[in-house]
Amino acid sequence: MNFRAELVIEPQLYQLSKAGKLCVPAMNVNDSVTKQKFDNLYCCRESILDGLKRTTDVMFGGKQVVVCGYGEVGKGCCAALKAMGSIVYVTEIDPICALQACMDGFRLVKLTEVIRQVDIVITCTGNKNVVVRENLDRMKNGCIVCNMGHSNTEIDVASLRTPELTWERVRSQVDHVIWPDGKRIVLLAEGRLLNLSCSTVPTFVLSITATTQALALIELYNAPEGRYKQDVYLLPKKMDEYVASLHLPTFDAHLTELSDEQAKYLGLNKNGPFKPNYYR
Amino acid sequence: MNFRAELVIEPQLYQLSKAGKLCVPAMNVNDSVTKQKFDNLYCCRESILDGLKRTTDVMFGGKQVVVCGYGEVGKGCCAALKAMGSIVYVTEIDPICALQACMDGFRLVKLTEVIRQVDIVITCTGNKNVVVRENLDRMKNGCIVCNMGHSNTEIDVASLRTPELTWERVRSQVDHVIWPDGKRIVLLAEGRLLNLSCSTVPTFVLSITATTQALALIELYNAPEGRYKQDVYLLPKKMDEYVASLHLPTFDAHLTELSDEQAKYLGLNKNGPFKPNYYR
Amino acid sequence: MNFRAELVIEPQLYQLSKAGKLCVPAMNVNDSVTKQKFDNLYCCRESILDGLKRTTDVMFGGKQVVVCGYGEVGKGCCAALKAMGSIVYVTEIDPICALQACMDGFRLVKLTEVIRQVDIVITCTGNKNVVVRENLDRMKNGCIVCNMGHSNTEIDVASLRTPELTWERVRSQVDHVIWPDGKRIVLLAEGRLLNLSCSTVPTFVLSITATTQALALIELYNAPEGRYKQDVYLLPKKMDEYVASLHLPTFDAHLTELSDEQAKYLGLNKNGPFKPNYYR
Amino acid sequence: MNFRAELVIEPQLYQLSKAGKLCVPAMNVNDSVTKQKFDNLYCCRESILDGLKRTTDVMFGGKQVVVCGYGEVGKGCCAALKAMGSIVYVTEIDPICALQACMDGFRLVKLTEVIRQVDIVITCTGNKNVVVRENLDRMKNGCIVCNMGHSNTEIDVASLRTPELTWERVRSQVDHVIWPDGKRIVLLAEGRLLNLSCSTVPTFVLSITATTQALALIELYNAPEGRYKQDVYLLPKKMDEYVASLHLPTFDAHLTELSDEQAKYLGLNKNGPFKPNYYR
Repeated sequence: MNFRAELVIEPQLYQLSKAGKLCVPAMNVNDSVTKQKFDNLYCCRESILDGLKRTTDVMFGGKQVVVCGYGEVGKGCCAALKAMGSIVYVTEIDPICALQACMDGFRLVKLTEVIRQVDIVITCTGNKNVVVRENLDRMKNGCIVCNMGHSNTEIDVASLRTPELTWERVRSQVDHVIWPDGKRIVLLAEGRLLNLSCSTVPTFVLSITATTQALALIELYNAPEGRYKQDVYLLPKKMDEYVASLHLPTFDAHLTELSDEQAKYLGLNKNGPFKPNYYR
Repeated sequence: MNFRAELVIEPQLYQLSKAGKLCVPAMNVNDSVTKQKFDNLYCCRESILDGLKRTTDVMFGGKQVVVCGYGEVGKGCCAALKAMGSIVYVTEIDPICALQACMDGFRLVKLTEVIRQVDIVITCTGNKNVVVRENLDRMKNGCIVCNMGHSNTEIDVASLRTPELTWERVRSQVDHVIWPDGKRIVLLAEGRLLNLSCSTVPTFVLSITATTQALALIELYNAPEGRYKQDVYLLPKKMDEYVASLHLPTFDAHLTELSDEQAKYLGLNKNGPFKPNYYR
Repeated sequence: MNFRAELVIEPQLYQLSKAGKLCVPAMNVNDSVTKQKFDNLYCCRESILDGLKRTTDVMFGGKQVVVCGYGEVGKGCCAALKAMGSIVYVTEIDPICALQACMDGFRLVKLTEVIRQVDIVITCTGNKNVVVRENLDRMKNGCIVCNMGHSNTEIDVASLRTPELTWERVRSQVDHVIWPDGKRIVLLAEGRLLNLSCSTVPTFVLSITATTQALALIELYNAPEGRYKQDVYLLPKKMDEYVASLHLPTFDAHLTELSDEQAKYLGLNKNGPFKPNYYR
Repeated sequence: MNFRAELVIEPQLYQLSKAGKLCVPAMNVNDSVTKQKFDNLYCCRESILDGLKRTTDVMFGGKQVVVCGYGEVGKGCCAALKAMGSIVYVTEIDPICALQACMDGFRLVKLTEVIRQVDIVITCTGNKNVVVRENLDRMKNGCIVCNMGHSNTEIDVASLRTPELTWERVRSQVDHVIWPDGKRIVLLAEGRLLNLSCSTVPTFVLSITATTQALALIELYNAPEGRYKQDVYLLPKKMDEYVASLHLPTFDAHLTELSDEQAKYLGLNKNGPFKPNYYR
């Protein structure tokens, strides 16, 4: 089950919309808060560890790792690996995410600065050709390369299909690519998404994502004529909050209720929404 | 210097706007990403520890703490105290923030569930009367109470000005409020903001906040007629990114640049903005 | 390969020695620093996550977990789960380890205080009957129970072999034990060691453990007559340090050397040992 | 109050003992577990942050720090700074501590490798001349230098008393040392112990240390003739455990008691000691 399919199609929705070719209203559920935080941040925090262990049995402690991209997925990967005792470097193109990486305790580098020394390379950018043949040529023997970001474009795997390199499938989802001098790179899932190919997804996260999608469809179906045009919309904040509230009992979590006086002071309805739409 | 003054006036801007009484365009710089993350999250992560140490010399290890509110300020306080070995409970009204607290490893409770057992109570809600006399009556001897949130409304300090309670000023910014049975509550800064009253603010954070404010004013001043109406605006993403990029050299941080091919693939300008306006 | 076999036999060595029945010199390699820290602390920090994921796909974020025992294994399990967003409680019999758990940010409880609310129970004590039928009867539906400690004595699995309980093998190493009211407990590896049964051991850790054992055997074999009597010994500190130094190049780690002046000041040989034997 | 005075005199005790000049029995309380962990590890984890903030108001997030020495004090400093978002490098002479630093996620370097790039230098070695003039000459402008280790020998402060360098006292305990080209080094407490000079010590830690010392004296005084000779002893494990048990109620911590059957299985007395003397 491709639970992150919308990651792929969501930029296309905006492109269709811009081009005037979107013929129905669409909901960008991928950018709802619950989806971003749970499916991307919290889920990837766990699945990066799980995916690497199941495929390579690598010990995280003391390993040097470079994570390309410090969005929600990158933040999750970095937090998990740092907690397990890895030394993590980050690459970014966006100065805001870059500054966040600095403040969270990661050296912000260009890939070429650390490529010779790292033990693991992880892509989480949503971009293409983030790791190219030139980078792969410089990695050290035994370096593990994988993609947590999107589709199969982030690592230029095609560039490794050349006559001088030998591919050896060592187990399911794990290939050794062997250079003429004997150097081996450990490529996971042939550059496709590690968390979809090599780890499991907790039912709790699936439940959050599926609830978000279902509510979006119900909203589009029930909305009165004219509420939505042929454009791309974010999930209304109140629905986002509703998805979260449905999942709190799992943790025996007890929400505080606003008093009338407090609701008035804050200018809020006691039942939400509690935040403006732009709040993350 | 009141570097978080805009926290107080920003909801008032929206109220003025709603009431049709805003007579000039206004920029809500408080909700720009750099302001939210740096002034609130990262700065409070440090100033909560600093403020508590300078006033009370308390040891954080093993202490039970309840943090009311899990927005950026609350997230910073919780992360710091957890890292120092405190056991942290969180209260929230918003189910999304509540679920984040759960996933970050904090028990989500109502204040009354833990008020008898905690050593420290910290408010970070932006709300009023979050800690009231009834809560204060139930705290244990020596409990420290302080406000990291906003203004001086979060703790109902006025309710402690009654004849049966004795106030004793033990040092600057620190009062012991003494119950008839001898129980003492340690009230910091008389319920005003701890981080403004009892800790310092790093110049780095001041620089980010001041840059954001200056750029907002320059933008409003220079904007062509008609770009902004009598309403409240968020800082354009590109300026937010510019503020961040100005502060990267402090960390010797090296940003990666998009190739032409990558910019085209992502549909982005190579110089940003790199994210949609709603992105946090 | 049973790489932790000595955990089982090491108390027996001391008992044999006390009883005057030890007929050869023996080396307690289990209590060497490198073994304790690497095989127990650092390895278990990773294998507790791996073992739980591979068997149950559980999400760690927000889960309530009780860890019985706060020795090196317990410390590793607690650190990993706390880092992944679990809320962790600890039980202990030793006041020193108990105080460490407090300072590290864990609530120290008796098992009965939290048994009804936790999602996962992990034993790491080296003791027997730490989790008994009475505890199992009170766990909530879906609670996961496993043993990271020693042998198969920590959980009283025999007490679950009664007619009113149904056992259902749901996959390799995973049994559902079903109560008459439908409640299911998820028992892993039938109470045997989770990290040996359900996760892999990094080769790096095996290398440290095997090196320690090999050096101990070489030392016993080569030692001049009379150095060792029929007793149990700890590995000489210098060998412990040698094991560590052999594994530093893996991390491209650069050791600092003492100057002559510094060695004299500290009263140390420049090549070690650098610490007294009792140092940990 | 010099609560860590014994740090200084303890190596001297062993030297006196070796030289046959110790004329009374002595107890090395500094190396008892509670002293090592609480006074050194847990206390320094907090006082490094406190000492730096009170003297320099530095922001920890994103700063590059080198910590010389990874014993208990160094471990505490590193853990605190990593948690606050600093990037931490470690130097060590002992391969065991060095390997621990690696597994805890710190790059192990020689001081000269990172001296040009770090923002803060902290010594925690117990050694002399760890930071010498040559290192100080290469530090970048604004670098903060301080000593958490022992006495005032770790930083060669005398080497900074030369005519071409200007000293400027900017506030109590803070000197700027100014190079001819204008570069300033921020020297704290003139190289004496930062945690004694510039931060406070929680009463909880003082209580543990004082209890340990008092019990050692009582034991030496009450011990029957012959139990102790003119030598240096470690505190008996049972007393160490007693110190810990006296401090558990502060945290409302509930210790588990061994059953008769369990005590027998483990070969322990139900009241302890629970660990062998060499256990840390």
